[in-house]
Amino acid sequence: MRHYRKKDFPVWNVRRFLEPGPIVLVSSAHNDQTNIMTMGWHMVMEFSPALVGCLISSGNHSFELVRKSQQCVINIPTVDLATTVVKIGNCSGRDTDKFSEFKLTPKPGAHVRAPLIDECYANFECTLTDTGWIDKYNVFVFEVVKAHVAISPKTPKTIHYRGDGEFMISGEETRKYRRFFRPGML
Amino acid sequence: MRHYRKKDFPVWNVRRFLEPGPIVLVSSAHNDQTNIMTMGWHMVMEFSPALVGCLISSGNHSFELVRKSQQCVINIPTVDLATTVVKIGNCSGRDTDKFSEFKLTPKPGAHVRAPLIDECYANFECTLTDTGWIDKYNVFVFEVVKAHVAISPKTPKTIHYRGDGEFMISGEETRKYRRFFRPGML
Repeated sequence: MRHYRKKDFPVWNVRRFLEPGPIVLVSSAHNDQTNIMTMGWHMVMEFSPALVGCLISSGNHSFELVRKSQQCVINIPTVDLATTVVKIGNCSGRDTDKFSEFKLTPKPGAHVRAPLIDECYANFECTLTDTGWIDKYNVFVFEVVKAHVAISPKTPKTIHYRGDGEFMISGEETRKYRRFFRPGML
Repeated sequence: MRHYRKKDFPVWNVRRFLEPGPIVLVSSAHNDQTNIMTMGWHMVMEFSPALVGCLISSGNHSFELVRKSQQCVINIPTVDLATTVVKIGNCSGRDTDKFSEFKLTPKPGAHVRAPLIDECYANFECTLTDTGWIDKYNVFVFEVVKAHVAISPKTPKTIHYRGDGEFMISGEETRKYRRFFRPGML
């Protein structure tokens, strides 16, 4: 599997990768356990601090690891990892060591104990900043405190879930509508 | 511009169109005013009730229209509307009647006073169900109470914003990973 070479990336601009709505992998660590979950329900909430709202259902093994450690890494997989992404979403960390089972490489983060998934295009180190809607909606608000993004390709070929086992793969990238933006909106 | 023929669609399944992360148009009405805004920050929060979290910045003219009327319609535009979508996002309802300016057709909803945009592929009638994070994060939680989805094509060609004037256009649709799902996960 491909390992991407990465550079530091400004956290206020992680929306470039999250806003188009890709499926992401959330990695976590607590005590001696690590886990990975597949997540499709997330949204950018603020540029700076770089806030991301995420829905982690309480049935997931990752729920308590993230809640207790108050950290995670949001990793962006590309289409070459699609089979692995689906398999990760269809087994549980209760009985599976997902890094080992799926031959993924954990890399240490700079600010969090949760491991980065080296095979992903981008890794966003996150700390939990708002727990107020965890019990009500399973919504976690994270601040991205450090971002690592692949040097190439410029944009990743991401996978976007539609439900019912169907995916949309990201298509054409275009700047042809850019001229319709007011300067202050760019 | 194309007007889609539509059918009723089960609200618990609107995730099929929102989860891949398209740019949407939010239409609203309050007293004698209507407006449309372009929105990229949203996430599915629950199947049933069909909840969607949305970030509507308080600087937008739509902010007060939605807050006061406690309703909106989330409309999904396709790529043929991309120029209009960008232009809508780059002017304000304070001084522009966007339906008239962009020659869009308002259609009455079944449950809300906010107008549906007929030229969009799908229209989700929404009521505001949680105001608790409006002041804190500009986050509105809506329940989709009625969904209208085009009869064809089966999947829309949507536009996904990357920031800096760049868009990703939705690409290939695939069911080839479906066999890796456990039955209960579909």
